[in-house]
Amino acid sequence: MITDNSSVTVSPELLKQLMDEVSTFGATAAGGLHRLTASADDGKARDWLSKKFKEYGYHKRTDSVGNMYGILECSSSDAPIIFAGSHLDSQPFGGRFDGAFGVVSALAAVQALSKWFERENIRPKYNLGVVNWTNEEGARFAPSLLGSKVFAGTLSEHEALASEDSDGICLRDALSNIGFAGSDVPPENIAGYIEPHIEQGPVLEKAGKTIGVVEGNWGTVKYQITFDGKASHTGPTPMSSRIDALLPAASLILFMRQLSDETDGKLLTSVGRLDIDPNSTNVVAGRVKLYAELRDIDEKRLKNARHRLEQQVKSLSSGGIQTKLECVVDRPIGHFDPKLTDAIEKASESCSYSSMRMHSVAGHDAVAVSCVVPSAMIFVPSTDGLSHNEKEFTAPEDLLAGANVLARTLGFLTTESSLS
Amino acid sequence: MITDNSSVTVSPELLKQLMDEVSTFGATAAGGLHRLTASADDGKARDWLSKKFKEYGYHKRTDSVGNMYGILECSSSDAPIIFAGSHLDSQPFGGRFDGAFGVVSALAAVQALSKWFERENIRPKYNLGVVNWTNEEGARFAPSLLGSKVFAGTLSEHEALASEDSDGICLRDALSNIGFAGSDVPPENIAGYIEPHIEQGPVLEKAGKTIGVVEGNWGTVKYQITFDGKASHTGPTPMSSRIDALLPAASLILFMRQLSDETDGKLLTSVGRLDIDPNSTNVVAGRVKLYAELRDIDEKRLKNARHRLEQQVKSLSSGGIQTKLECVVDRPIGHFDPKLTDAIEKASESCSYSSMRMHSVAGHDAVAVSCVVPSAMIFVPSTDGLSHNEKEFTAPEDLLAGANVLARTLGFLTTESSLS
Repeated sequence: MITDNSSVTVSPELLKQLMDEVSTFGATAAGGLHRLTASADDGKARDWLSKKFKEYGYHKRTDSVGNMYGILECSSSDAPIIFAGSHLDSQPFGGRFDGAFGVVSALAAVQALSKWFERENIRPKYNLGVVNWTNEEGARFAPSLLGSKVFAGTLSEHEALASEDSDGICLRDALSNIGFAGSDVPPENIAGYIEPHIEQGPVLEKAGKTIGVVEGNWGTVKYQITFDGKASHTGPTPMSSRIDALLPAASLILFMRQLSDETDGKLLTSVGRLDIDPNSTNVVAGRVKLYAELRDIDEKRLKNARHRLEQQVKSLSSGGIQTKLECVVDRPIGHFDPKLTDAIEKASESCSYSSMRMHSVAGHDAVAVSCVVPSAMIFVPSTDGLSHNEKEFTAPEDLLAGANVLARTLGFLTTESSLS
Repeated sequence: MITDNSSVTVSPELLKQLMDEVSTFGATAAGGLHRLTASADDGKARDWLSKKFKEYGYHKRTDSVGNMYGILECSSSDAPIIFAGSHLDSQPFGGRFDGAFGVVSALAAVQALSKWFERENIRPKYNLGVVNWTNEEGARFAPSLLGSKVFAGTLSEHEALASEDSDGICLRDALSNIGFAGSDVPPENIAGYIEPHIEQGPVLEKAGKTIGVVEGNWGTVKYQITFDGKASHTGPTPMSSRIDALLPAASLILFMRQLSDETDGKLLTSVGRLDIDPNSTNVVAGRVKLYAELRDIDEKRLKNARHRLEQQVKSLSSGGIQTKLECVVDRPIGHFDPKLTDAIEKASESCSYSSMRMHSVAGHDAVAVSCVVPSAMIFVPSTDGLSHNEKEFTAPEDLLAGANVLARTLGFLTTESSLS
């Protein structure tokens, strides 16, 4: 059975209202967002989402790591659920759209479908759900994709809850403080997960396309590299006695860029964070922890870069410096569910939006979830490809396009027999 | 008049007791000290010092930036005062001796003199004082030598009190919180200042000497260099679009070391601190502030290094990176008061301790004070030259030697006419 869902359209007013409301929690003066996981502002955003779940008649569940599920029972109570959503946490002084758009567009799309079912007297095959995953960004607590990884069983609940922020506060306590240390079991009967998100890169904008049909993800390897030296006074300590942990760290930062340069920038490399101990002007650094990333869509190039990096770290163990290299994320090049990507492409066509197939360079909750639930993503353009920045921007018409494609995709999936 | 002060001896029991007591406030598990300026632990150490002042019958004054002066009126009330002391704040997870020893040995020495005056019925020419300067380390608030600089008039009280820690708490509020935002004017009639301190370097130990007669200080230039790039996502942002502020910072860290290597380590250089914004694993660094130091006893070499560094920073303004270089400390090569250093040397001889003349590489409160009051320092050996480290250590017999030399130096100065 194929149901014509060309009348399913998200309300532009509702989408705008929801976006405006959620953007107030943790809003920064420069128009961005500072809403770290389980902070007071994250608590306010979660309270707001709980209210929406209630207002829209969704059953709410909050699991032990704070993932929030809102379920609209539009089919039989034992029918499988198709979820849409993303995350409400942000980077420190990040943008308004990264994450929040996925949750907001899911709310608006499910509302549009709910009205369509009622209007057309449709009994869908699936129930619908909206989800907010905890700590996608990994900015306050490690690792990133924390909530979706626990859901997928690739990270233990125990490890996740014990994760500490830089002040030594663990996620368990932080969630308790905002009232979101839940006790519900996550829904088990999930048939699919679709995540709308801003692209965060320049590909759609450059290609002049509105919708990115995300077929999979780049491989990503993240390392934490610790250099142990010896803290001492930057004054009276002779240069020959110093074991300065910042020197090999600085050398590795430059080496990481060189690794990318050698591939003409095809391999993406970065060092975004250093934890320096004690980080005091007049103390030689005793310890530096460096956070490095490698990303590539080419398996061989990625493997080669890993090898080169690991060799380089070894070579930096000299002059009293001790090194430790930990691989903390090893996300293989991944592929989303073809039935879902086909449905997204069809939905784009049905809405007359231009689209293109592409891969996600960044990690997303859908990547973590995809190993246990058929998943896919819908990308909308990012102005100047800018993200993780207060100036991050996606035009309202592009947000609406993403929400409409989500609604029609869900329309196809809930009324056609193709999914399961 | 020359008074034989060979009977002036500091009580080893008192010195040990005072050292043990003061080391409890902010003690770390590894035997070090974490007592940042105006923290709760600093407040406890200050309360302890206030109690000692009261117990020993000193008049206490606390000025607006929290400098604590305890004055023993052993001469006429309008007689000039000779102060001894140092600072009670520590580096983050630093050592027990850096600073605290100077305050504790001053207490023990003044007590020994007080008893001597009484015993021998001596009416000294000077009153005696013990001082604790605020925020010598500069670890929590900038700049270092804050309290002594305000005393010397080289830093405004307003600027000092407005200085903020990394959480945005200003010194004014931090001092209020621990009850040490004083309202007393500092003593005006000060004839001299002597600061006992651990050497923090390996010179005395290597030379097999017990006492360092500190004749002056190396020149020190401190810079804060800001690199402005653009925060963006370390995933989807193409390498060619990134403006990564960590890259020029890493390059400058290596350049700083190279500057020293070129002088065979005679010029001391360091980068001990970086403030990275936002310092998140998956965000290209938008801004990095780098804290660099140059130290030398050779005027010409120091001048050349400054020039080279400034040129290098200029050359790093490329590829969208904007740089800003601020010189925040420009401490010229300095000379302490010859009458005081002669007295310290004489006191060492009178105690039969081996001594040597030397210069301080590090900045100390005595350096700041010396531009308005005749000043000098007494160094005692640091085991392995280690400091700004929880393992910092000076043997009890060396601490006692330093305190005895201080006591006899003060004995010479208060009873001879040579000082003023």
